[in-house]
Amino acid sequence: MLASPLKLFALRLAEAARAETMTRWSAGIEAEDKAAAGREFDPVTEADREAERALRRLIEAEYPDHGISGEEFPDRAAQGRLGWSLDPIDGTRSFICGMPTWVTLIALLEDGAPIIGVIDAPRLDELYLGDCDTTILMAGGTERRLSTSGCRRLPEARFSTTDPFLFEGAEAEALAALRSRVRTTRYGHDGYGYARVAAGTIDLVVESRLSSYDLNALVPVVRGAGGVIGDWSGGGDFSAGQVVAAATPELFEEAVALLARAAA
Amino acid sequence: MLASPLKLFALRLAEAARAETMTRWSAGIEAEDKAAAGREFDPVTEADREAERALRRLIEAEYPDHGISGEEFPDRAAQGRLGWSLDPIDGTRSFICGMPTWVTLIALLEDGAPIIGVIDAPRLDELYLGDCDTTILMAGGTERRLSTSGCRRLPEARFSTTDPFLFEGAEAEALAALRSRVRTTRYGHDGYGYARVAAGTIDLVVESRLSSYDLNALVPVVRGAGGVIGDWSGGGDFSAGQVVAAATPELFEEAVALLARAAA
Repeated sequence: MLASPLKLFALRLAEAARAETMTRWSAGIEAEDKAAAGREFDPVTEADREAERALRRLIEAEYPDHGISGEEFPDRAAQGRLGWSLDPIDGTRSFICGMPTWVTLIALLEDGAPIIGVIDAPRLDELYLGDCDTTILMAGGTERRLSTSGCRRLPEARFSTTDPFLFEGAEAEALAALRSRVRTTRYGHDGYGYARVAAGTIDLVVESRLSSYDLNALVPVVRGAGGVIGDWSGGGDFSAGQVVAAATPELFEEAVALLARAAA
Repeated sequence: MLASPLKLFALRLAEAARAETMTRWSAGIEAEDKAAAGREFDPVTEADREAERALRRLIEAEYPDHGISGEEFPDRAAQGRLGWSLDPIDGTRSFICGMPTWVTLIALLEDGAPIIGVIDAPRLDELYLGDCDTTILMAGGTERRLSTSGCRRLPEARFSTTDPFLFEGAEAEALAALRSRVRTTRYGHDGYGYARVAAGTIDLVVESRLSSYDLNALVPVVRGAGGVIGDWSGGGDFSAGQVVAAATPELFEEAVALLARAAA
């Protein structure tokens, strides 16, 4: 992987986010409910907002013509082809429960397509940087290139999905079918599940209702490690928030065959 | 917490287990299916067996009259009142999926009742040591005394349970009732959920079908931090494998009121 100024800047962003998230993680957690009364619980922490503020400040100072899209504040339009997609804490539920697999998601998009992705797991000191061609894991002062596993069949697949009760109707049926065929299932790991696809210890992730800032960073990381990521129809249209990430094309196709009926 | 030779020995056991588990965690994972064909998937790794072997060797050398009960090998009867309960890797599914919250469980029992418990999370470098009176967390070379949260009501509770699909019949109904009342739910953290009850970031854990080596170590850790741990009827009979751990007596009672109908 060639170092480029934009990749190095993505790493600077991740470092700045860590400073905001880890001090608050260590100090204890004050979550609040940003959802309106009666809507589903959706915690967001001071860490989330302060980290997004820090990232926006850095981007505005260094690349004032880049667009910015994040979970906490209004979008800023790009003056050119490049823009950043930010989710300072993906996995706020894990964060407030003291569970370590929450991540920071940072992506650089060109004409709307993610070309650089960072999945940073601060509590684990694991940073995944991908550019669709190569993905590296930086951890404990070392770095290594990642490859997905060779898993080609559902019965051998280690499967991750965030919430077993998020799915309804045809989506729920598709998930139940998947769950009954795979080797084992893990829940609640949000973006970290995709990082482990890149690292070769999870073989398949299937999710629905992802927002663009939830998924942009995942694409270059999964593809850079040799994995396949697409929508539930097997294409590349993520507008419905339905995502499949697989270690191999064969596994991707087998999952898509099960999910196709439930695809948007 | 007073240091005692047996507590220091429990820490030595945890250290010996880490040496076996972490080398294999870092090297990659070769799981095998120890369940008979047709039975539920139950992975066990070389790390699990080798760590239990190392712990048994240490106990046999230092305390030849102590009993030993573990997941991987036959029980050894005690020549006196003391015995060890060992589960080198609780959370083998997390381990083989590269997820960091698997733990080593070590308990010392007196006349069958757990009096010292260790929950060690090697990947996270967090060791929880409890003696029913005090619980400490040793992490990153420092240690601090733990207290459970002050959470007294289900609507504010951060709830953890390992497998949302393990429950059937009345147990499944009880779990659904709990899930609909709590603030948020986390899945798949095995013994680490109880460690986080002690640390104050999870308020409630409810599980079923735990074996004695899954639960012995949890009891001194939860109680030492001021939490309550008992069975689904509110008593202390764990023989049915049904466990409730709560941050406060009030939360414990509210959970038990919901679970009582499904109690064994």
